[in-house]
Amino acid sequence: MSVPRVSTREVTVQWGDCDPAGIVFYPNYFTWFDAAAHALIDPVWESKRALLQTLQVMGCPLAGASAQFLRPSRKGEKIMFRSFVETWEPKRFVIVHEGHRDGEILLAGREIRFLGRPHLQHPQRLQAIDIPAEFIEAFAITSNEVT
Amino acid sequence: MSVPRVSTREVTVQWGDCDPAGIVFYPNYFTWFDAAAHALIDPVWESKRALLQTLQVMGCPLAGASAQFLRPSRKGEKIMFRSFVETWEPKRFVIVHEGHRDGEILLAGREIRFLGRPHLQHPQRLQAIDIPAEFIEAFAITSNEVT
Amino acid sequence: MSVPRVSTREVTVQWGDCDPAGIVFYPNYFTWFDAAAHALIDPVWESKRALLQTLQVMGCPLAGASAQFLRPSRKGEKIMFRSFVETWEPKRFVIVHEGHRDGEILLAGREIRFLGRPHLQHPQRLQAIDIPAEFIEAFAITSNEVT
Amino acid sequence: MSVPRVSTREVTVQWGDCDPAGIVFYPNYFTWFDAAAHALIDPVWESKRALLQTLQVMGCPLAGASAQFLRPSRKGEKIMFRSFVETWEPKRFVIVHEGHRDGEILLAGREIRFLGRPHLQHPQRLQAIDIPAEFIEAFAITSNEVT
Repeated sequence: MSVPRVSTREVTVQWGDCDPAGIVFYPNYFTWFDAAAHALIDPVWESKRALLQTLQVMGCPLAGASAQFLRPSRKGEKIMFRSFVETWEPKRFVIVHEGHRDGEILLAGREIRFLGRPHLQHPQRLQAIDIPAEFIEAFAITSNEVT
Repeated sequence: MSVPRVSTREVTVQWGDCDPAGIVFYPNYFTWFDAAAHALIDPVWESKRALLQTLQVMGCPLAGASAQFLRPSRKGEKIMFRSFVETWEPKRFVIVHEGHRDGEILLAGREIRFLGRPHLQHPQRLQAIDIPAEFIEAFAITSNEVT
Repeated sequence: MSVPRVSTREVTVQWGDCDPAGIVFYPNYFTWFDAAAHALIDPVWESKRALLQTLQVMGCPLAGASAQFLRPSRKGEKIMFRSFVETWEPKRFVIVHEGHRDGEILLAGREIRFLGRPHLQHPQRLQAIDIPAEFIEAFAITSNEVT
Repeated sequence: MSVPRVSTREVTVQWGDCDPAGIVFYPNYFTWFDAAAHALIDPVWESKRALLQTLQVMGCPLAGASAQFLRPSRKGEKIMFRSFVETWEPKRFVIVHEGHRDGEILLAGREIRFLGRPHLQHPQRLQAIDIPAEFIEAFAITSNEVT
């Protein structure tokens, strides 16, 4: 059984992140999900750069995203995001982003991403490829690390 | 059977809405959902202001949001959003936002919102109230309008 | 004497544009300046595409930006931006953006931009070129239009 | 002679901060200026809360802002902001924000702010008050700290 690597990223809510109700304007949570996704994916991207270039993969675009908001956050409050890949499908994967503060879960989100290479018929669009096993394995903690 | 009132709002994608891949940075879609939700809700809010004040309703916060992205959009492209309430539950309602261009659906999103009044124990938080029938009816097209 | 072409662009302030004080979060004004600058420049860019390609011009980056804020704006209020090139220097030009509502000036900003081509020593950076007269003339109203 | 207190704040450029040219979309620099201004002002605000309440001061709104952009920044690059009050006028003050990386200055900005209390004739607007000496002194490094 492989254990998913967890990436963490702390955000301090800024004045400009909040709306007239004084709480985080919700699209900003997705901006933080995207930054957390990059923090999770970038090291793998670097280590698998040769493979991804061979497969003509240009990036990890979004097929979908969602969030449940349990507790609002205000200026000056910190949110600790924990992000990891929850499921792998042949052509897409789901990243979970959990936002915590003081042991309480504030929100939880999911991003569905795929590995995209230029679409043969529509070069302006990206097409999902079969995710190579080598890419998937790089998101698991190795037994060396666990021990 | 009541027909939901549909609100439309057109967005032209700006340079600053796009990321280094040249396509809309996805959290911006949620910013547009929020603006479209206000375009849908605000007229009802105005017409039911007295009722909502009596119920101490402060706003329509989000309990959740989601989107599926089917086609990317680039600078200068227009997106026509069609927004309407899809379902009413006792304490929450779902707004659908569909983004179209040239008869093609580009993306579809949902926002789950509730009518929030200050929480009795936690005045910093909002608590969902039972949505009054009068509020719900205001989102339906009246038979006068249909004819 | 040439008269500068004026581009106008109306913005309706959205909930998400405002901060906890209920007024527009000021960086958003610069986002609107950028959109207004594109509205002013894009038609010229299109008409002079061949020239700009010959000169290897990649874009119109910013050398500076400034704004004076006279009156705040709130959700639902409209701002009409009037934008035009105020001054041409050999290697840069200044765009003025004035924000109006109901005959009152709300804010005024300036962007200093240049025509950038890849820097010979630092290909990641852009280098200002001498602005060709043909480009400048395209921002003036022709006598045909004035009459 | 008093030495101004300097506040520092590091930003790592995110994918979503960048535009299709792959560099920071410039309004984001002002978002970072605002966050840096809060980092500089908030501790003083806390320590002078009683005084500011007596004076009915609601906040530190912007009268103006400007920036000069010398070097672009890209995803993953860090920017260290150094912020301090440059000048005090009777009713306004200027905060300088310098963005550095590896000993090189990337950009420099200024915000002109004032202490605002509700305008007597226009309660929706804020009016600048004379800045109290006690507020100004709190932005200087005390001789105790210097020694």
